Amino acid sequence: MDQSPIFSEVPHQSVRFDDGLTLDCGRHLNKLTVAYRTYGSLNAARSNAVLICHALTGDQYVAEPHPITGKPGWWEAIVGPGRPVDTDKYFVVCANVLGGCMGSTGPRSPHDERPDEPWGVEFPPVTIADMVRAQKKLVDYLGIARLFAVVGGSMGGMQTLAWAALYPQSVFAAVPVAAASYHSAQNIAFHEIGRQAIAADPFFYGGRYWAEGVIPARGLAVARMTAHITYVSEAALTRKFGRKLQGASDLLIGDRFEVESYLEHQGSSFVRRFDANSYLTITRAMDLFDLAADYGGNLADAFAGTPTRFLLVSFSSDWLFPTAQSRAIAKALNHVAANVSFVEIASDKGHDAFLLDEPDFHRTLNGFLIGCAEHAGLDR
Amino acid sequence: MDQSPIFSEVPHQSVRFDDGLTLDCGRHLNKLTVAYRTYGSLNAARSNAVLICHALTGDQYVAEPHPITGKPGWWEAIVGPGRPVDTDKYFVVCANVLGGCMGSTGPRSPHDERPDEPWGVEFPPVTIADMVRAQKKLVDYLGIARLFAVVGGSMGGMQTLAWAALYPQSVFAAVPVAAASYHSAQNIAFHEIGRQAIAADPFFYGGRYWAEGVIPARGLAVARMTAHITYVSEAALTRKFGRKLQGASDLLIGDRFEVESYLEHQGSSFVRRFDANSYLTITRAMDLFDLAADYGGNLADAFAGTPTRFLLVSFSSDWLFPTAQSRAIAKALNHVAANVSFVEIASDKGHDAFLLDEPDFHRTLNGFLIGCAEHAGLDR
Repeated sequence: MDQSPIFSEVPHQSVRFDDGLTLDCGRHLNKLTVAYRTYGSLNAARSNAVLICHALTGDQYVAEPHPITGKPGWWEAIVGPGRPVDTDKYFVVCANVLGGCMGSTGPRSPHDERPDEPWGVEFPPVTIADMVRAQKKLVDYLGIARLFAVVGGSMGGMQTLAWAALYPQSVFAAVPVAAASYHSAQNIAFHEIGRQAIAADPFFYGGRYWAEGVIPARGLAVARMTAHITYVSEAALTRKFGRKLQGASDLLIGDRFEVESYLEHQGSSFVRRFDANSYLTITRAMDLFDLAADYGGNLADAFAGTPTRFLLVSFSSDWLFPTAQSRAIAKALNHVAANVSFVEIASDKGHDAFLLDEPDFHRTLNGFLIGCAEHAGLDR
Repeated sequence: MDQSPIFSEVPHQSVRFDDGLTLDCGRHLNKLTVAYRTYGSLNAARSNAVLICHALTGDQYVAEPHPITGKPGWWEAIVGPGRPVDTDKYFVVCANVLGGCMGSTGPRSPHDERPDEPWGVEFPPVTIADMVRAQKKLVDYLGIARLFAVVGGSMGGMQTLAWAALYPQSVFAAVPVAAASYHSAQNIAFHEIGRQAIAADPFFYGGRYWAEGVIPARGLAVARMTAHITYVSEAALTRKFGRKLQGASDLLIGDRFEVESYLEHQGSSFVRRFDANSYLTITRAMDLFDLAADYGGNLADAFAGTPTRFLLVSFSSDWLFPTAQSRAIAKALNHVAANVSFVEIASDKGHDAFLLDEPDFHRTLNGFLIGCAEHAGLDR
């Protein structure tokens, strides 16, 4: 496994805010950098901007090759010319989240008090709302008063919900996909496994691995592997691997199941592009997410009087963010008479379905955005 | 975390077979020790014996305090005076599985060629059938030609199925609980996470941790925590913990979710009583289990002409060994006109329900055994 932190040398497009950002925890970051990418053109009325929010291990490279892995953008199925989020029509913005490791302020950024060192584990805990506030500064900087749409899956869906709750006048349409209004006990438990695996790695050095010139690759790989199982359905794993052996030979003399080497590959390729302290910070932000709790325990109150049009999408085989959680959000939105559509897409691909080729999902999103564009007068 | 391998000093009741055991992998163990416990009395006809098969991390201390932890026996809800497996009526036998660490031959036993060392990672891969063959030697040694019943949950259910397939004339009744006839890709994947976590522990030393006087406690704890999540349902985790904090204070200033400290406790108490190399060996045995594959791909053929009476039990919220897998076994048994009852118990406690207070399960098992005892002429 490659131990070199090669990703530190990749340059990213970014904007720096010298007034920093005050976090939910009460701490103030003196400086805030937001790394981002844009696709398409902002129209004269500045009314065609779509913000894409990425998931736990995603980044701003939504519709172009990844600068480290060289792989296609993580949502090229959704974002691009002629795609549901059509870059010929919309100005698409995607920012690396606060706490991330692809150029935005996070554990790898210079420490506020000791700028020769990275923050590391001393980076303050951040929340989904903190991530959204950082994105809001970017959106303001780009001169966009109102986003035509905010779209995101998984943790991106949490951000989408937080956007609609925090800045209802700035969000014409919101599409939380495979999302939830809180992180469940089971989800917290799976994240905790990953964090324990990272902390147990001898190369973690209490989070100061950067000072030793190493990375806790094995712990981070175990964390990724664990998470990966939760992203796929039992049916998808069975279809893809079943009980197939990697070679043609016999398990009893040392062969492995295909699913094992696949998982190991998932883990080892991940550590090349992701920072362990960022993984700790971002998983914690997801665990902390409980939108209703921020509004006295009543989710509907988060959306009282909202002008935003919502499309909620879930996938039938997603056991990490099951349909029931999207349904609960739809119910809360109905309670405040919001404009809401809710679609459960039949898929056996699990949580990951939001990233994959799911024509029904793509058609649904496309139709919703076309309808919203008409209402917003975008097509005039 | 306690690093001392204290469990090595506990004496266990056992029997040694000097002819050893030939394994499915082709290797021959020169010596075989089977550690076991019995409860109740064997009747004059030697016809009232019930073999209990334990799960991955269980052992022979089914109905008495555990010699290391001091906790009650793991199935005291099921086995004991007046219990469904009534020790006033039945002679109950439970053996530590081959590959285990509570006295039966396993990775901690002396190496066949270098008896001053334990087998460690050189212990040959074993199968569920190998475990059953070792138990058969014990049952023969005890002078029991036919077991009145074989009962087991989870991996114990796999052994129960293998008993019925390998020794149909020796099993009057079989009760596989929360079981499956093969280990699914998802289950293999979760086991692989645990194995990777153990292998990544710096105290694993390639499996020779015993030579260093340490144990890979953190890796083994991560493995246990991962497995533990799969044993409980999302509903049970939510009911027990939800998003409750451990203290009364604030997560953002360093508090933890209750579910996190609970998991950590599960992990750290486990490493006091379990051997990492045994965990590797036994999880592998489960992964290798595919009863149909041993019979040309047709599960029904494993039970052709079986005289055994079966009770299959599943739990509605068990996502590790879901009801569909018990149903598939019932179907195969029906195909060969076996005597089979199949019950899905409504429970929201997940896979662990088989170990917990589930009155419907206990009543079902009790009723089945009473009926079988009549047919076997046990009650005369």
